[in-house]
Amino acid sequence: MSRAFNFSAGPATLPEVVLRQAQEQMLEFDGAGASIVEMSHRGPEFIAVAQQAEADLRRLLSIPEDYAVLFTAGGATAIQALLPLNFAAPQQRVDYVLTGHWGKTAVKQASPCAQVSIAASSEDSGFTRIPPRDSWQLGADAAYVHITDNETIHGVQFDGAPDTGKVPLFADFSSSIASAPLEVAKYGLIYAGAQKNLGPVGISVVIVRRELLERSGQPRAEIFNYRAVAARDSMLNTPPTWNWYLLGLTVRWMLEQGGVEHFARLNAEKSAAVYAAIDGSGGFYRNDVVPAARSKMNIPFFLPDDTLTARFVSQASQAGLLALKGHQAVGGIRASLYNAMPLAGAHALAAFMADFQQRNG
Amino acid sequence: MSRAFNFSAGPATLPEVVLRQAQEQMLEFDGAGASIVEMSHRGPEFIAVAQQAEADLRRLLSIPEDYAVLFTAGGATAIQALLPLNFAAPQQRVDYVLTGHWGKTAVKQASPCAQVSIAASSEDSGFTRIPPRDSWQLGADAAYVHITDNETIHGVQFDGAPDTGKVPLFADFSSSIASAPLEVAKYGLIYAGAQKNLGPVGISVVIVRRELLERSGQPRAEIFNYRAVAARDSMLNTPPTWNWYLLGLTVRWMLEQGGVEHFARLNAEKSAAVYAAIDGSGGFYRNDVVPAARSKMNIPFFLPDDTLTARFVSQASQAGLLALKGHQAVGGIRASLYNAMPLAGAHALAAFMADFQQRNG
Repeated sequence: MSRAFNFSAGPATLPEVVLRQAQEQMLEFDGAGASIVEMSHRGPEFIAVAQQAEADLRRLLSIPEDYAVLFTAGGATAIQALLPLNFAAPQQRVDYVLTGHWGKTAVKQASPCAQVSIAASSEDSGFTRIPPRDSWQLGADAAYVHITDNETIHGVQFDGAPDTGKVPLFADFSSSIASAPLEVAKYGLIYAGAQKNLGPVGISVVIVRRELLERSGQPRAEIFNYRAVAARDSMLNTPPTWNWYLLGLTVRWMLEQGGVEHFARLNAEKSAAVYAAIDGSGGFYRNDVVPAARSKMNIPFFLPDDTLTARFVSQASQAGLLALKGHQAVGGIRASLYNAMPLAGAHALAAFMADFQQRNG
Repeated sequence: MSRAFNFSAGPATLPEVVLRQAQEQMLEFDGAGASIVEMSHRGPEFIAVAQQAEADLRRLLSIPEDYAVLFTAGGATAIQALLPLNFAAPQQRVDYVLTGHWGKTAVKQASPCAQVSIAASSEDSGFTRIPPRDSWQLGADAAYVHITDNETIHGVQFDGAPDTGKVPLFADFSSSIASAPLEVAKYGLIYAGAQKNLGPVGISVVIVRRELLERSGQPRAEIFNYRAVAARDSMLNTPPTWNWYLLGLTVRWMLEQGGVEHFARLNAEKSAAVYAAIDGSGGFYRNDVVPAARSKMNIPFFLPDDTLTARFVSQASQAGLLALKGHQAVGGIRASLYNAMPLAGAHALAAFMADFQQRNG
């Protein structure tokens, strides 16, 4: 068994101690005679697992009592489709701020069921910055304002919550949740696929101010009705129990490591090491994002040509630095530095970058 | 480590050999330096896992080439909500045949987006039979006819596909898929949550005649558009990779055991043992389903009173026969005998039933 440093953008690296616990319990959970993946979601064992995961997540993120926490099957994309159905009246305006690829996906999923207005976009800059708040064209009658806190492909990240006045702020935190302290009360709704910072693929989290669940929304099936989902503690139907269990183990691990303050420091240090390697390369490595908007989670960068890029990916992989190929939408290299990536991984990457440049620069 | 016989209705027992393989590969998949749950769904390792799972499922169920196979996140309930959106025009009639609780759930999920007509129902009999085909009130203009092949709570199962003429037959096979040979071509669409016969919770399968994907349906997000999902091989977004992987291991195991013919024989033998214990009890145990409609997957039965029922569940559990409590909707006992339940489990249950009756009858 040989585990490498895995820079995958998601599904992403998990803490080894979490995987070891899942491994130990794979055939039998806690003396129950069966694996957790084989047990009823309505039985006392899984109910305890589910409730502990929610309690730990509430503690990790300091989620106020007037926010519901939903655990949903499927990823953030399904949530993007359900936002207008749950929170906008038919034909009501919804405002979207685009800072990268995933904001565009959010618009695509919402468009069939809402009047989407692009309040601001940095696409003309190649998504290398956050449009200044005073340039946003917001509607006072919008159902919500949607942002993507961190763009995994373009490597652009908000620094805190923008003020949207009385219109609730909805944010895709798929790739940045729990990476640093977060003022939940500044958002109406936060959602995240779990497969980056919260653990495994196959489950997502929606954190929503309870009063918003009272909106009548649009005709939709009960299973897509977040008010009904909340009322049944996310068990309207069989939830992805194993994924929920693994999320719980990961959240517990984050608390034990020192919580979001610890990860904020760690992630700042990890990303600083990689950005320093880029900025100190004399232009051999290039990242175009303006410094204030640089992501601490995903660092895309470019080499002088495609041949060098392919060689970099291949030699890095041989050196135990996996999944560094950039997203097909932009090419180049991408290093994802989620919570479970240790500092040693970022340092190993920075050292490899310097060495590679010396051999190929 | 002590694994019991687990009669849970779902999530349900898995083959021990499958769990052992998942356990072995939990920290590293096949020399890749990472677990499959940590790897990109777009990487060669997972693509191979996903394609093999589909190929094996096609072989197991003899799925014709003109049928697409979709792997979806979430359970059967979400599929029930998406059927009218994908396959019925706005306000088009859809026909539902009710033979138990889950048929009613299917109606509930479809109702906001379709004109649901109840073509037949056996609710007046307490869901103890299949309404005779010649009593069904079908509409020639219906988008589809929906049945539930096996009702897990009421223990009622179809014997083959009813003829619905030119209107395509849609069937919820969540609890009976792969339990016996199946003529896919008689159905327009078959769907199933995986957590009973196909493996783990958190992933579902939709098998649909490709020409039906050309229906225009109703306004819906891309992620809910089965034509788009099929065109992207179920990877429009990040799928539940680990669940897909475990499904693949389970399907492979079923092929190795001898395929659906093997399981048809095994399931007949298992269910016969339990029904014999009921029918031979002189009325101490009672199952009200008419013999021709008795399920081979889920056997609900009743004891003379609630005190005995509770004692039965408790003592069975102590004897290593888990999760026998009936669904809250009907009470009593329920024994689920999915493919991964060995014959020895059914025999152990039958022996326990005889012994319990002797001590308490």
